[in-house]
Amino acid sequence: MADGDRLPEKMTAVAISTPGGPLVLKPERRDLPKPETGEILIRVHAAGVNRPDVLQRKGAYPPPPGASDLPGLEVAGEVAALGEGVQRWAIGDRVCALTPGGGYAEYARVHETNALPLPAGFTFSEAAALPETFFTVWHNVFERGSLKGGETLLVHGGSSGIGTTAIQLASAFGAYVIATAGSAEKCAACLKLGADRAINYRSEDFVAVVKEATDGRGANVILDMVGGDYVGRNYTAAAIEGRIVQIATQGGAVASADFSKLMVKRLTHTGSTLRPRPVEVKAQIAAGLEAKVWPLLAARRIAPVMDMIFPLKEAWRAHERMEEGEHIGKIVLDVG
Amino acid sequence: MADGDRLPEKMTAVAISTPGGPLVLKPERRDLPKPETGEILIRVHAAGVNRPDVLQRKGAYPPPPGASDLPGLEVAGEVAALGEGVQRWAIGDRVCALTPGGGYAEYARVHETNALPLPAGFTFSEAAALPETFFTVWHNVFERGSLKGGETLLVHGGSSGIGTTAIQLASAFGAYVIATAGSAEKCAACLKLGADRAINYRSEDFVAVVKEATDGRGANVILDMVGGDYVGRNYTAAAIEGRIVQIATQGGAVASADFSKLMVKRLTHTGSTLRPRPVEVKAQIAAGLEAKVWPLLAARRIAPVMDMIFPLKEAWRAHERMEEGEHIGKIVLDVG
Repeated sequence: MADGDRLPEKMTAVAISTPGGPLVLKPERRDLPKPETGEILIRVHAAGVNRPDVLQRKGAYPPPPGASDLPGLEVAGEVAALGEGVQRWAIGDRVCALTPGGGYAEYARVHETNALPLPAGFTFSEAAALPETFFTVWHNVFERGSLKGGETLLVHGGSSGIGTTAIQLASAFGAYVIATAGSAEKCAACLKLGADRAINYRSEDFVAVVKEATDGRGANVILDMVGGDYVGRNYTAAAIEGRIVQIATQGGAVASADFSKLMVKRLTHTGSTLRPRPVEVKAQIAAGLEAKVWPLLAARRIAPVMDMIFPLKEAWRAHERMEEGEHIGKIVLDVG
Repeated sequence: MADGDRLPEKMTAVAISTPGGPLVLKPERRDLPKPETGEILIRVHAAGVNRPDVLQRKGAYPPPPGASDLPGLEVAGEVAALGEGVQRWAIGDRVCALTPGGGYAEYARVHETNALPLPAGFTFSEAAALPETFFTVWHNVFERGSLKGGETLLVHGGSSGIGTTAIQLASAFGAYVIATAGSAEKCAACLKLGADRAINYRSEDFVAVVKEATDGRGANVILDMVGGDYVGRNYTAAAIEGRIVQIATQGGAVASADFSKLMVKRLTHTGSTLRPRPVEVKAQIAAGLEAKVWPLLAARRIAPVMDMIFPLKEAWRAHERMEEGEHIGKIVLDVG
């Protein structure tokens, strides 16, 4: 580890003191993580909050082997130390990164290939709001779902961090975007971000609206984090050769569907989770993002939708906010 | 139409007199079909019998627009007349072909690209047993499912026409093949065809056997025509990044499954039906078969498994045989 001599011995982190509600998130003093070969240590200035953090807090989503026990899947900050063999980064570089955990802390370690430069003009808080949703959307909608310009994307949870990112990216790449959300205010936010049609799922049937909006053809790609009865309804709303990508099952993992529709329409139902993938896979996603998406961010053609920022030590408030479900866009922790 | 002057005016065909049991299949005198541009007329010597014929007979599977109302999805015979613009074939050529219907007859018309030469040394009966299962298996297992040498294929219904074809092709291309079937005799047939492991689903749990046979990894590709509770069990039996290809839902179209498994294991669940695809798609499948599979047939490294042959006029007996479920391999009609 180079140039670590000016680093403090201890840092503040927010840990899960015991599985439970938001208040189990408690500040602790911890030793700094030590970057291993190929890793960088980041002095964290801001950390993104994501739904898997909530699941982990409840004890329902244990960290993968080798990952920090601290929550936090994305950070932005400055490179503070280099592990052996690091090639790309130098001390002081401003980066944002996907972390395998450990983001709720003043320092976090990450493989150098899973970090990206701060887009020009971005604050640390904005940059900390990027990795988790942009890696997820890029991989699932564009790589796994093969969305192309001119096709129709249906994105559920349109006002979530994932949803707002999917709307903007799909729209920027020329897709017709339909988003579902749970209130008129959230639908308005989706439209403002570039969705061509927003569906309030509390008052409209998304299957009927998608069929109508596509002259009966259906959606070519569906990004779904709901599961439950949405699975069968997605099969009905999808176009011939449509791709349905499952990234969560918040409405229930076990559900019934008509698989003759999947067969007759030649649908592809797939899905993925990002966290357990090896660094090499995340590096490939990062390379795609840097080439295709970072220029759009630098040009401000797209930008993360910021909901609220809380101090690191009040991470419990950030979790309360996420669990209330009233947020639009990203919730971020200010680490100072 | 060239050289049609020696053709008879009428032919014998077996039609579905009304939806119902096997006995509704009745011989009729019909006008010969007239080949359209790009089509050939085949003097049929043998016609394959397939499960969709049974569904069509029951009224549950109407022919696609433009197709004959006669059942029969595959034939072998001699080219008897040419539509305009036919390039590949000459009168008298011995071919087998995928037909969009109309195979239960002395003459059938088909697009020239959906016909293939009789493999060297093949009888018409053997050749009539090829198209439906070989087009289906090639497209679903190798093209859609991307099965590669060294991977594990789980094929349900291993003793069916589809199953016996899948076992042989997958084995010939270097896959480890596990087949399910419903009796010791059928399991023995699967093993004889090259399956590395046969599972009697009446006495063994295929999920447990697949896991054990793959050191816990699971099957890379699953070819399923059952559906029902097999869907959820397939998700459990599949390997990480496994592909499940649904080609029928004989055990029920509507079923429950745990979609978190699909997501966490990054499975791909897809499927297709062959009959409604346009001739261009079938032509592409035919080209792949001729290049990669026809040499294996000519070398007798693989061969269709023949169950029983019935005279055309007794097609009802062929349907009875299929519905009894005791057959192993293909049931074929001898058209003379």
